[in-house]
Amino acid sequence: MSILVVGSVAFDDLKTPSEEAKNIVGGAATYFALSASHFTDVNIVAVVGNDFTEREKKIFDGRSIDVAGLETADGKTFRWGGEYNADLTKRTTLFTELGVFENFQPVIPDHYKQSKLVFLANIHPDLQVDVMNQVQNPGLIGADTMNYWIERTPKELAQMLAGIDVLVINDEEARQLAEVHNLVRAAAKILQMGPKTLVIKRGEYGVLCFREGERFATVSYPLETVIDPTGAGDSFAGGFMGYLATQGEVTDPVVRRAIIFGSVLGSFCVEDLGTRRLEQLQRDEVHERYQSFKELTDFASL
Amino acid sequence: MSILVVGSVAFDDLKTPSEEAKNIVGGAATYFALSASHFTDVNIVAVVGNDFTEREKKIFDGRSIDVAGLETADGKTFRWGGEYNADLTKRTTLFTELGVFENFQPVIPDHYKQSKLVFLANIHPDLQVDVMNQVQNPGLIGADTMNYWIERTPKELAQMLAGIDVLVINDEEARQLAEVHNLVRAAAKILQMGPKTLVIKRGEYGVLCFREGERFATVSYPLETVIDPTGAGDSFAGGFMGYLATQGEVTDPVVRRAIIFGSVLGSFCVEDLGTRRLEQLQRDEVHERYQSFKELTDFASL
Repeated sequence: MSILVVGSVAFDDLKTPSEEAKNIVGGAATYFALSASHFTDVNIVAVVGNDFTEREKKIFDGRSIDVAGLETADGKTFRWGGEYNADLTKRTTLFTELGVFENFQPVIPDHYKQSKLVFLANIHPDLQVDVMNQVQNPGLIGADTMNYWIERTPKELAQMLAGIDVLVINDEEARQLAEVHNLVRAAAKILQMGPKTLVIKRGEYGVLCFREGERFATVSYPLETVIDPTGAGDSFAGGFMGYLATQGEVTDPVVRRAIIFGSVLGSFCVEDLGTRRLEQLQRDEVHERYQSFKELTDFASL
Repeated sequence: MSILVVGSVAFDDLKTPSEEAKNIVGGAATYFALSASHFTDVNIVAVVGNDFTEREKKIFDGRSIDVAGLETADGKTFRWGGEYNADLTKRTTLFTELGVFENFQPVIPDHYKQSKLVFLANIHPDLQVDVMNQVQNPGLIGADTMNYWIERTPKELAQMLAGIDVLVINDEEARQLAEVHNLVRAAAKILQMGPKTLVIKRGEYGVLCFREGERFATVSYPLETVIDPTGAGDSFAGGFMGYLATQGEVTDPVVRRAIIFGSVLGSFCVEDLGTRRLEQLQRDEVHERYQSFKELTDFASL
């Protein structure tokens, strides 16, 4: 089953303690698609400006990624600049230039409309709802959001949450959305808002997942070298949704394994600057690290 | 096999957002002993002042805890006061009064000297070495330490580390000891200092364990109600060492299960103020939560 993802495709300036780069292709939809394409076909819906040329589009070439829904509008591509502190625990946004993203109205190509899985990456909740309405009879809708929308567009966000199946956010966003610090309590509140599954990303610490009558917790894969955390959350979402797409049904065990595959993709993402590691990633490496995750965490079967 | 633990037995003043109490019995050896006594016999070595009466000693009654090594000295018992912020993520030490602990010279009762497992809770590394030297032919020595000794007594600490088998510290201590932020690299450095097993506690996030050729990672048990984090790390150590004591050998799978039992004890500890929850804890609750931990984290066998 193919996945439709709507979100940003952007130019990033990244400064990490070990490396930096300017004008590299980034954005949530980019990281998501590169990750999910290891599992299934991905249909991108996004907008770029006319500074985003064929050269930049090459990042999607030779993969199971359809860019028919990648619209080119007159103007500049969304640009974001970020800088990390010495131990990569804090990120400062240096600038955000919306460019053509400001007037983005997602149009879903006809051949995308049958997509059974939909992922609404972090964009204005009104656009997320708009995309939901354009897709015919989706089997599962996942979504992300951020503090900006939680603070400024709570009504629109509530409408989005009411329509989705899976919410994938980080711990601070969960706390802010629920207005509760304890994550178990926050999760109970968020599950009342619409999603049947809540996946809480905790960065280097792991993932918590809550569904009705079900809780799952796992660690993040420990890495000796972390170069750049940019895109890790979107890569997680891509691996998570990608694995779901390969399975016929969304049961508790399937969701658990999807979370591990998401964590695997997130762990590869941070091993190099920007999308570099994801671009080189081979499918057998994904499955090797999944096995390694088992060995790392198993205590019950030994 | 019995465990000998040397460490503090203290009076604590605790302020949490939901509850507070003064002059309650605390200290690392207390939390450790209450936790480990669910698994095996525990022999305490510590010092209290003559303000620590028979009434206070009742906390150890009716359990597998031997207090022959709990010396009463002329003077006041070690006192510590701590206050937590609203979400329990930060602790401020309000006061520390060493009292009789200042001149503590641990003397191991003769019938303790055969203890096969020894845990050196967080005290001056010279005292930890002194205890090691008094025990005859121990099978396994575990130890904790803190930033205070890492900064002020690095030579003495190095001597202690050279003599132990298992070091149980938190992530910040590991980083400080190794002078490396990345925990995988920090662990490699610390394993060069002596211990064959390094257990890194990450508070609400879980535990990482490193041994030669072996890595294990697990989460902390998610709780809906956390009242007071005081003693969680010592309770972890107690459950960890306690389970090791029940097993004939220290293999990788045994260490993994011991870490889960440690996490179980830590999770109970924080459910109420001070030692309250540990005092009421039943052995079948420990095993139920261990099962629940399996269900929470399993993805491979489903």
